[in-house]
Amino acid sequence: MKYKLKCITCEKEYEPKEDFYFCPDCGERFGTLEVIYDYDNLNIKKEDFSKEKGMFQFEKLLPVSSHTRFDEYIGATPLIEFNDLLGINKVLIKYDGTNFSASYKDRASIIAINKAIEEKKDTIFCASTGNAATSLAMLSASTNLKTYIFVPNTIPIGKRLQLEVSGATILAIEGNYDRAFDLSMEIGLEKGWYLRNSAINPYLLEGKKTGAFEVIVQNNYEDIDYLFVSVGDGTVVSALYKGFYEFKKLNLINKIPKIIGVQSEGLDAVKRTFEKGRPYTPVDIEGTTIADSIAVGMPRDVIKACKYVEASNGKFITVSDIKIKEAIFELGKSTGIFAEPAGAITYGGFKKMVELNEINKNDKVCLVITGNGLKDPDVLKNDIENGFIEIDEVRRRFK
Amino acid sequence: MKYKLKCITCEKEYEPKEDFYFCPDCGERFGTLEVIYDYDNLNIKKEDFSKEKGMFQFEKLLPVSSHTRFDEYIGATPLIEFNDLLGINKVLIKYDGTNFSASYKDRASIIAINKAIEEKKDTIFCASTGNAATSLAMLSASTNLKTYIFVPNTIPIGKRLQLEVSGATILAIEGNYDRAFDLSMEIGLEKGWYLRNSAINPYLLEGKKTGAFEVIVQNNYEDIDYLFVSVGDGTVVSALYKGFYEFKKLNLINKIPKIIGVQSEGLDAVKRTFEKGRPYTPVDIEGTTIADSIAVGMPRDVIKACKYVEASNGKFITVSDIKIKEAIFELGKSTGIFAEPAGAITYGGFKKMVELNEINKNDKVCLVITGNGLKDPDVLKNDIENGFIEIDEVRRRFK
Repeated sequence: MKYKLKCITCEKEYEPKEDFYFCPDCGERFGTLEVIYDYDNLNIKKEDFSKEKGMFQFEKLLPVSSHTRFDEYIGATPLIEFNDLLGINKVLIKYDGTNFSASYKDRASIIAINKAIEEKKDTIFCASTGNAATSLAMLSASTNLKTYIFVPNTIPIGKRLQLEVSGATILAIEGNYDRAFDLSMEIGLEKGWYLRNSAINPYLLEGKKTGAFEVIVQNNYEDIDYLFVSVGDGTVVSALYKGFYEFKKLNLINKIPKIIGVQSEGLDAVKRTFEKGRPYTPVDIEGTTIADSIAVGMPRDVIKACKYVEASNGKFITVSDIKIKEAIFELGKSTGIFAEPAGAITYGGFKKMVELNEINKNDKVCLVITGNGLKDPDVLKNDIENGFIEIDEVRRRFK
Repeated sequence: MKYKLKCITCEKEYEPKEDFYFCPDCGERFGTLEVIYDYDNLNIKKEDFSKEKGMFQFEKLLPVSSHTRFDEYIGATPLIEFNDLLGINKVLIKYDGTNFSASYKDRASIIAINKAIEEKKDTIFCASTGNAATSLAMLSASTNLKTYIFVPNTIPIGKRLQLEVSGATILAIEGNYDRAFDLSMEIGLEKGWYLRNSAINPYLLEGKKTGAFEVIVQNNYEDIDYLFVSVGDGTVVSALYKGFYEFKKLNLINKIPKIIGVQSEGLDAVKRTFEKGRPYTPVDIEGTTIADSIAVGMPRDVIKACKYVEASNGKFITVSDIKIKEAIFELGKSTGIFAEPAGAITYGGFKKMVELNEINKNDKVCLVITGNGLKDPDVLKNDIENGFIEIDEVRRRFK
């Protein structure tokens, strides 16, 4: 095998095998696994990569080969540069709202589907606040895999429709994401279905790290000082760190940015765990937020997230629901990007640190916007002007 | 200038100049202009193009240079191959729902914005059923242009939100697209704003033709027999023809596919005009359809659309609203693609011709899906299962 698995807590190494997802000694929560490659013998050069190609150009650093018709179209999302955003001279926005299912989660789902095909599974499942589910359902629709989706019944209308249209079996449970997650594990593992839960299946983070690889290549391998991203279970933030870590280990970049994980004020379990300090022990909470994609009270990848953010000299911060809504409109007006709440919160976190003078105008900043605002129209329904203007009124206005 | 303008009706040629949009002899409706390049001296080779690059790689065949931060990210949308769709062996789906504003219209808006910048305009405007407007508003948000948007107040919620968030001035009028269009021309031209109405401004079709260029390059310059696309004003269908026409003229492909324009049964003005035969004279109608993006009773690019579809040996067909909804779900289940009604109607038209045995299983088919289903969630609200499942019920089901 070109890679090994290593427990995030006891650091024991394992050879990959089927249906093996976490360290049996440390358990599901503490024993999440890292995928470790033989970095010294990978022979990776800058010239191997292009700014326009999708995530499978990084196949040497992925635990799977390409088998589906969608592989070449996942990733290669825009990295858009703004030169005076909130007074900061260089702000790069990585916008994954243009992915196939309109979120960052395609990067993980496509790995899971390829892995399930390699392992000759006939069924795949996931628990999700919504984006992972829609991504899996849409990307698996044209494969031979049967797909089971466990989601809270409060899933936003856009995501619900993506699921309905794709023909996956939707189990929209009465309960939140944390309960959907536990139920999916109970049933899916017992049935031997392929597991597409990013925080448990170590291979999915590998797909998610490609967002960092793309940022690096698109930014010409230049230094970035701060990288902001929203945090729910903790897998995307961990994955972004790992992407920078691996490219630094391969001597392709000079530094890893400080990773700033942004959580909702109402559900900040990862931040609380981080701030209690080592040894990291999950602080589970109950709460609510309009940012449905990160509405997680029992984050499953919290240990990894804390260790990686610490290693980057970063931290976790929170943004309130009111500020999230403001961020949607401010981000839209200044950049044209329409983000879902869990995407816009990244901008809200950036703004908060700028206002606290924690970012200097010459710091190079990257914001990762993970999902398209079209996924959750209802969240803004009361914040927009409705109605119409009569034609004669328009004429009068411009006379 | 590297190009000239030629009237679609009287064929008189003009040198391009500012604020010159249609042939003064033939008028706004009959006198739409074609952009003609000096094809013999362009020196274009297959090696100039890549499957992954966006629309500005075709700059030699565009009437404008690149000036905005978004240019490199427009286009390069997936061309996904299916090998047994409704019994047809090779069906390519060009899916523009992953563009920046989630529709094909980005290809035209980015041309308009670049042109407005070149002409040093401070304001840009458009009339739109929705997608052209959201595309313009989002792509212009981070420029110095002021943006006026004329739309019917019945615009779907997703598109409305894209407009609101981008900060453009929205004139959501009491009336349909045809009235919004007339009002926009009355005010915008009088004010000297830059005109982003595809059917009138000849340069915008040039952006839209890049979808055809991408299909050709992504399909390795191989033959396509039929190309299906939805039709409202008639500009996209014309643009797709022109893309194939130009690549054939440059000896890069062997044949132009038969272009099949698909209209809604409720609003089929282009089809009626086409079927009355030459000389083409617009048949304007009133009607309704759930496919809001092609809800056009007075198609502005109808003459060009009829001439080009005739030249391709294609035709126009219609699909009913009920069949459009069926098409959304069928397309989703078989391909994973979630299309808005005006995107799914393309699949509906393809299905209709398959059922009529007008397509053979070895015909090479391309379907152009122009917009993302997330833009209009309300159209499906009554067609999906709502509610939830109790956790114990899920357990029972899988016991």
